Amino acid sequence: MNIKSYLKKWKKKVDEKLIEYLPLEETYPQTLNKAMRYTVLAGGKRIRPILMITTYHLTGGRDVEKIMPVACAIEFIHSYSLIHDDLPAIDNDNYRRGLPSSHIKFGEDIAILAGDGLFSHAFYIISESNLAAIEKEKVLKVLTKALGNEGIIGGQVKDVESNCSMKDPKLLRYIHSHKTACFFSAACEIGGVLAGAEEEKLFSLRKGGLFMGMAFQIVDDLLDVKTKMKEAGRDENKLTYPSVHGIEYSRKIAGRYSELCLEYLKPIDEEGILEKIILLLLGRKN
Amino acid sequence: MNIKSYLKKWKKKVDEKLIEYLPLEETYPQTLNKAMRYTVLAGGKRIRPILMITTYHLTGGRDVEKIMPVACAIEFIHSYSLIHDDLPAIDNDNYRRGLPSSHIKFGEDIAILAGDGLFSHAFYIISESNLAAIEKEKVLKVLTKALGNEGIIGGQVKDVESNCSMKDPKLLRYIHSHKTACFFSAACEIGGVLAGAEEEKLFSLRKGGLFMGMAFQIVDDLLDVKTKMKEAGRDENKLTYPSVHGIEYSRKIAGRYSELCLEYLKPIDEEGILEKIILLLLGRKN
Repeated sequence: MNIKSYLKKWKKKVDEKLIEYLPLEETYPQTLNKAMRYTVLAGGKRIRPILMITTYHLTGGRDVEKIMPVACAIEFIHSYSLIHDDLPAIDNDNYRRGLPSSHIKFGEDIAILAGDGLFSHAFYIISESNLAAIEKEKVLKVLTKALGNEGIIGGQVKDVESNCSMKDPKLLRYIHSHKTACFFSAACEIGGVLAGAEEEKLFSLRKGGLFMGMAFQIVDDLLDVKTKMKEAGRDENKLTYPSVHGIEYSRKIAGRYSELCLEYLKPIDEEGILEKIILLLLGRKN
Repeated sequence: MNIKSYLKKWKKKVDEKLIEYLPLEETYPQTLNKAMRYTVLAGGKRIRPILMITTYHLTGGRDVEKIMPVACAIEFIHSYSLIHDDLPAIDNDNYRRGLPSSHIKFGEDIAILAGDGLFSHAFYIISESNLAAIEKEKVLKVLTKALGNEGIIGGQVKDVESNCSMKDPKLLRYIHSHKTACFFSAACEIGGVLAGAEEEKLFSLRKGGLFMGMAFQIVDDLLDVKTKMKEAGRDENKLTYPSVHGIEYSRKIAGRYSELCLEYLKPIDEEGILEKIILLLLGRKN
């Protein structure tokens, strides 16, 4: 199994489905549909949907067509969070994946609404999918727990409230585990849920996904340090692993999280696909 | 049936449940939970949840406790849309129900996130409710259709893109039917859906709710004209029924919509409760 071809194959499949499930650009209201499509289709590794598809397969799922709406919904939610994150009032990032952010391209009003639109669209796509009602219910329970005040939004709020002068490792762990890791955890768990995996496996997926997300976010922060040497931005004031623990020790923590992740996922990961994905993600240069 | 006591009784019930289903103020992260509670509990007539509860009863529903999570979810969604609407980039309203808007009270970053949090919380509360999976599925289909690019968000986008110099009745109708009326329609339909009403009744609820929402929004615009004589605001530049059709003719259109609404709802509304609610809503002074 060549992991790069594996990721490429599934990214292509996810991209095709994202295009299919997004509202058409030429339909009314065009500005909104354009803005929704712009951020989703501006690129991205599609890690979260691919993780979901992978854990689905690894826990015995066979009907990948059936679960694609959920994989895409996860990416729509990720895109919504990026649009709102980039807004002037939050991270004030003018660029995303080398392109102007949504609010630069379409204006702040449309960007806020395009984020809301993608959030809503994610639930629409799940509701309208061919999954059984009981499957939709299970997916929504995992997903909405990860998204709300005890999940992503909770992490985001503590993120905007913190700054790099707060050398508080506990707060930092809260931010990362909520704003990033719980969504990785949910993506991994949902794959298992849709395959009908038993609770023991779901527990491993949940924990493995959580540690994967933690490691991922630290690596992201470390890559940001490199970028920040080139350009200044508001993010510089953020509470990050490098700002609290320094670069070397942050690398060590990321390593420890990825070990914990692999430990949890090992019983499920017979072919070592998840291990390869994780090692690639954590060794990434961009 | 005294309609004012009826509305008061159900508003009280909804308010109690909203408090119960909102995250506690003292739990972490406090700022988010405070901001989510602030807008939801700042008042409001709870029209949409009460309409849902009323149509549930009128179509034979008997277990009101079971459906309260959905009624509250509808109010959470309404509150999220108010928070995002009031933002400086959208309507730039500093006050809501006589109190500082969310972004004035908590800052723009927290307001955006509190809106997102309420949106997400609505789906969480539905997912975790005691409704059967098949009922949740049906509710989510109606709700997500009303919320997204072909519903509220679509209407909002055309609203921010329009201004009062565009004397375009078709565009105006699109904005009102999408940003306001389709949510009234969904609230009415969901009551019927949860009571297991047959398609013919659901159709009446959908249409009746839609015309009710149209009339409601015109009355809202007419009340705004009165208020605008006292204070200036960005809303003055908005495309509204009074700005396109003048005050007198707008009143006539609102009257016509409420007639259409009553026509559709009559077969369901044996005791005339909906009729009384509508007449009260449309004759309201604030």
